[in-house]
Amino acid sequence: MAIFEGNTVNTSHKHASVEAVLQQSRTAFLQLSVLTTNQKNEALECFATLIETCQQDLLAANQQDVEQARRENLPSQLQARLTLDAGKLKLLVQGIRDLIALPDPAGKVLSRLKLDDGLLLEKETVPLGVIGIIFESRPDVMPQVLSLVLKSGNAVVLKGGQEARHSNQAMYNLVCRLTAQCPFLPAGWAALLNSREAVHEMLAYPQYVDLIIPRGSNQLVQSIMADTKIPVLGHADGVCHTYIHHSANLEKALAIVTDAKTQYPSACNATETLLLDTSVAQSFLTAFVPLCKAEGILLKGCQHTCQMVPDMTPANQADWLTEYGDLILSVKLVNTLEEAILHINTHGSHHTDSIVATDDVAIEHFLKAVDSACVFSNASTRFADGFRFGFGAEIGISTAKTHARGPVGLEGLVIYKYKLRGSGQVVKDYTGDNGKPFLHQSY
Amino acid sequence: MAIFEGNTVNTSHKHASVEAVLQQSRTAFLQLSVLTTNQKNEALECFATLIETCQQDLLAANQQDVEQARRENLPSQLQARLTLDAGKLKLLVQGIRDLIALPDPAGKVLSRLKLDDGLLLEKETVPLGVIGIIFESRPDVMPQVLSLVLKSGNAVVLKGGQEARHSNQAMYNLVCRLTAQCPFLPAGWAALLNSREAVHEMLAYPQYVDLIIPRGSNQLVQSIMADTKIPVLGHADGVCHTYIHHSANLEKALAIVTDAKTQYPSACNATETLLLDTSVAQSFLTAFVPLCKAEGILLKGCQHTCQMVPDMTPANQADWLTEYGDLILSVKLVNTLEEAILHINTHGSHHTDSIVATDDVAIEHFLKAVDSACVFSNASTRFADGFRFGFGAEIGISTAKTHARGPVGLEGLVIYKYKLRGSGQVVKDYTGDNGKPFLHQSY
Repeated sequence: MAIFEGNTVNTSHKHASVEAVLQQSRTAFLQLSVLTTNQKNEALECFATLIETCQQDLLAANQQDVEQARRENLPSQLQARLTLDAGKLKLLVQGIRDLIALPDPAGKVLSRLKLDDGLLLEKETVPLGVIGIIFESRPDVMPQVLSLVLKSGNAVVLKGGQEARHSNQAMYNLVCRLTAQCPFLPAGWAALLNSREAVHEMLAYPQYVDLIIPRGSNQLVQSIMADTKIPVLGHADGVCHTYIHHSANLEKALAIVTDAKTQYPSACNATETLLLDTSVAQSFLTAFVPLCKAEGILLKGCQHTCQMVPDMTPANQADWLTEYGDLILSVKLVNTLEEAILHINTHGSHHTDSIVATDDVAIEHFLKAVDSACVFSNASTRFADGFRFGFGAEIGISTAKTHARGPVGLEGLVIYKYKLRGSGQVVKDYTGDNGKPFLHQSY
Repeated sequence: MAIFEGNTVNTSHKHASVEAVLQQSRTAFLQLSVLTTNQKNEALECFATLIETCQQDLLAANQQDVEQARRENLPSQLQARLTLDAGKLKLLVQGIRDLIALPDPAGKVLSRLKLDDGLLLEKETVPLGVIGIIFESRPDVMPQVLSLVLKSGNAVVLKGGQEARHSNQAMYNLVCRLTAQCPFLPAGWAALLNSREAVHEMLAYPQYVDLIIPRGSNQLVQSIMADTKIPVLGHADGVCHTYIHHSANLEKALAIVTDAKTQYPSACNATETLLLDTSVAQSFLTAFVPLCKAEGILLKGCQHTCQMVPDMTPANQADWLTEYGDLILSVKLVNTLEEAILHINTHGSHHTDSIVATDDVAIEHFLKAVDSACVFSNASTRFADGFRFGFGAEIGISTAKTHARGPVGLEGLVIYKYKLRGSGQVVKDYTGDNGKPFLHQSY
């Protein structure tokens, strides 16, 4: 059964259907899309202040979730992710104030073309519409997401993880107060779904929902991608590669591979497979194998790697497709640049892949031929990140081929429309042998 | 059963599975994506020349289709669309040469950011991948589409209408000659499917096909959208509106509405519903009704319109959702700008809508609040078109909210990737309290 907490302080209409919720989101979006930048920033400042003033309520609700997680003996990593504290809330508030300072992603004129005198075409960014966001246990995702959709002028339908339900409900109560305090915010601009069945139902409504953003495990993302025709912004896998070309500076290669594997092994942009040019394999591995022992990295080698290194764990076919998310690295020897590129394009997840080389021709060919969202030379795959890329905010990382690819900032939450301002023009006058020509001049 | 004509002059391997075809397309795409602009333009020039030299073969094959259509008594409109002649081929060849002159949509640098000294980030357009294009009887669609995907560096899988199968096969034979003449073109860059079952099978492979472009009737587009998780570039409906605000110049309004309805009634950007401010309705209709009689336009009025105009056909609820594609226009009186906007956002297809007004505040509010790909003031809805918008080429018109919206030019066939060129940087050095700051400077 779909349960919906209405967008008012009084959450009495608990049993509205998912379709009714989505219809209200659609209506709310139309009202949001005419808000001014100042209004949106005012709402964001109000949101930041509410988080500060309601800190005790938020932490108390979170405490209930943390205690329940402890009683249920959830893994300690998950318990840590679930826990909010004053420091995390302070960072959240700072994040919202940083967002206020960023330019409005909507209302940006992308191009201007004079079709004829008094017939002016503008291409302008506008908010997307209704965005469905499904996230797992981390309770700080919800306020981040709420501030991003507010900044961009979208309506949002949220579903958080069960483990964080008290935290999420407390945050949603705060959203209701926000809506009451900012009369220009339409009812239903943010809705909260409370069951998996409701999410499943939402995924069947492409007529109401324009984009789905899943934030969580590969399994969550994969199950959502399999369950909907709505465009999904995200990535199921992050099987990233680092390739050491024979022209590489091996000292830099060692530092890059080590960083790409160990700096944060569970991140999607951590390297999972090392491709090693056969001609430099022996000298690289001589230095790298002891380093891996020291760092606690388990190596799994292809047949040729195993022949070079005693007692190496052999990799099987599944290893080349696996995102370990752990201190495990598969190693494959390749004879040519083309073999490395082919391996990446065939086995990778089109996320982030890096070449270490000094040969510029090899580098440029790699950057062009590898079909991934992020292609790097002489840098750790871990750089693939919206904040490192200077976006100010990150919605997620996408491996899709349409709309938005790679780390996605606020621009992933907007599309554009064409505004044509005329003065009475009709197409008939521009048609046929004696038709007026178009000017098509930028202005 | 899936039938595939192989991408060689010898079309012997007729029974390759659709999956095998798509796998070959994927491989071909990787090779296409590293072609230079000169190579792509060379292939286009070769294609144009082949159409000129093979004109007799193309026309003879087309004659078979036309004769069969005549024997089967297909509607005369369809027979006309099916017929190729020397004039149409000349236009096609000219279109290909115009395309050669356009800039390459791939390889365009969208932004450059210096993350740090020797750590440079570029966002660059790249071809999308494998594009599936399904079109109906017009045999000139196939060469147009082939030239657009060649220009952008994408692989393509085509399925044409049964009525044009001889014409399409002749064009495909020419593609095979093109591939033989341009050794840099990979086998399988263009594949032809010959059955609906094969299309249905293709639509189930989002892992191989990145974008579907249906070109044909609403019914075709709707059935494809319902059948796939692959992003679809197109529009099922074109329920466009013209709204006459009370501040409108009524003479201009008359000209605009007439053009929007009659200049090409079967086009998707023709106006289907006229929204008329109550305060100017009587004076507008007094001039418009006789004009409609003269032009053969059937008016269907709302209750209030019917009260004003004797013998008017009443419109029902379904009319507000109907794309007539004919000389029929539904008319609805509205009391306010907001009522007009609400009607459009609720009943329209988010395609193209126009306001006729002199009040700038009303115009700007309409342009902002109407959630459509194209929003116009004081201009005919018929201007919504890639060529009129100055794109040089049009892929189609999209009502999607992600990737590409409105008339779509070559830029709809590309996406971007991030290229990061470093000199040994690792993320660890930019992390923590003593981490290096990023510069994030445009360069």
